[in-house]
Amino acid sequence: MVITSLENDKVKELVKLQKKKYRDLTGTFLVEGEHLVEEVFKSGLVINVICLEDYNCNYDIPVMYVSYDVMKKISSLDTPPAIMALCRKKDDSIIGNRIVILDNIQDPGNLGTIIRSSVSFNVDTIVLSPNSVDLYNPKVLRSTQGMFCHINIVYADIIETINMLHEKDFIVYGTNVVDGVDVRRVSPSKYWALVMGNEGSGVSSEILDLCDNNLYIKMNSKVESLNVSIACSILLYELGRLDG
Amino acid sequence: MVITSLENDKVKELVKLQKKKYRDLTGTFLVEGEHLVEEVFKSGLVINVICLEDYNCNYDIPVMYVSYDVMKKISSLDTPPAIMALCRKKDDSIIGNRIVILDNIQDPGNLGTIIRSSVSFNVDTIVLSPNSVDLYNPKVLRSTQGMFCHINIVYADIIETINMLHEKDFIVYGTNVVDGVDVRRVSPSKYWALVMGNEGSGVSSEILDLCDNNLYIKMNSKVESLNVSIACSILLYELGRLDG
Repeated sequence: MVITSLENDKVKELVKLQKKKYRDLTGTFLVEGEHLVEEVFKSGLVINVICLEDYNCNYDIPVMYVSYDVMKKISSLDTPPAIMALCRKKDDSIIGNRIVILDNIQDPGNLGTIIRSSVSFNVDTIVLSPNSVDLYNPKVLRSTQGMFCHINIVYADIIETINMLHEKDFIVYGTNVVDGVDVRRVSPSKYWALVMGNEGSGVSSEILDLCDNNLYIKMNSKVESLNVSIACSILLYELGRLDG
Repeated sequence: MVITSLENDKVKELVKLQKKKYRDLTGTFLVEGEHLVEEVFKSGLVINVICLEDYNCNYDIPVMYVSYDVMKKISSLDTPPAIMALCRKKDDSIIGNRIVILDNIQDPGNLGTIIRSSVSFNVDTIVLSPNSVDLYNPKVLRSTQGMFCHINIVYADIIETINMLHEKDFIVYGTNVVDGVDVRRVSPSKYWALVMGNEGSGVSSEILDLCDNNLYIKMNSKVESLNVSIACSILLYELGRLDG
């Protein structure tokens, strides 16, 4: 049976998931397009898929077939995909010895790209401050290219997290263009956390005060700063340079 | 005098500049917001500024005062800025010994970020293939954080450009995740060009065939590729590592 009515109760529930409030309330979210659905499916997070009526769906899970108009209503994209998936949120915790801490990142593309780079450079866990852009925002998920499934991501208070990591002998690296140490000159400890700050204001001084070391990327003095996802990726690349 | 009519001829001309076609036709473009206007002003490219009626404008150039509604109509932003500037396009050529060549980059944020990183890591010229996203797209300009004023940017045929650079003894680095050399193991020549490809399809095989060397960034094998602006920035960071 193909659902064609925009007034269908299931459709209305799915449309609500465009809002963070309903994603939080239900613990579920949507992903759009074949590549993302496949990545999330491999992680076992998919509850059911939603397909256009003529889509050849090969997943062995419940399928809801819908008309183009219904798909367009559910999707966040101008051109709706042929397949979407309703998923349950991850339930991750802070583990591992390489942590990225993000203080108030607001741009969905930046968060998504940082997640993708973090997986690339073997980060174990990403900690997001509660005021950050929502991980389950469709633009964030798209920018991760599905990589959010391959890394632990938690929301937690940054100061409490840093204090907890210090108790476990982590070195906490802040980032500061004014008063930093060239990352090329740093020998990363085995247990480290890297703190990146908001696009406009950087890492807050309260949090910088808690960091053991501020890192800096050497560059042309004409430029005030790099984009936060670029800076984070270069620092992760450098901190991983001693990997076998 | 404050222009309040959306039907004003000057206003209509400015609104047209939201389209690439009119930017090309007139050789002009708009920038939005104090920071970008200031950067472009310093480069001598501003023809006149457009300000909200109550804005305290300190530029010693012609000012056009407009109402909020007119500014909203001219601006590409949901929340219009207090100041914009009408500017003439740059007239750059390929100079210097560090060149970035971009083959069919489509995302405005990626192009803007690559420009910002290129200035950071002392690139002299950026060559864009004619099918790339327009440099003067408002989102591109915003992502550059004004840095497009500080670097030569030209549109040119990629193959002709590579042939020309080869004649001048440049080493041309391609990028290929499959068959590349770890960029850490490369000693950059004095004269080099780095070719980055489209977000989805990478550098075309026709162009890769012309490259002297393919570079690769070592990373987790779970990840197919990095975002193109991240990859480009890390490669530029590494190629500049021997700088004094």
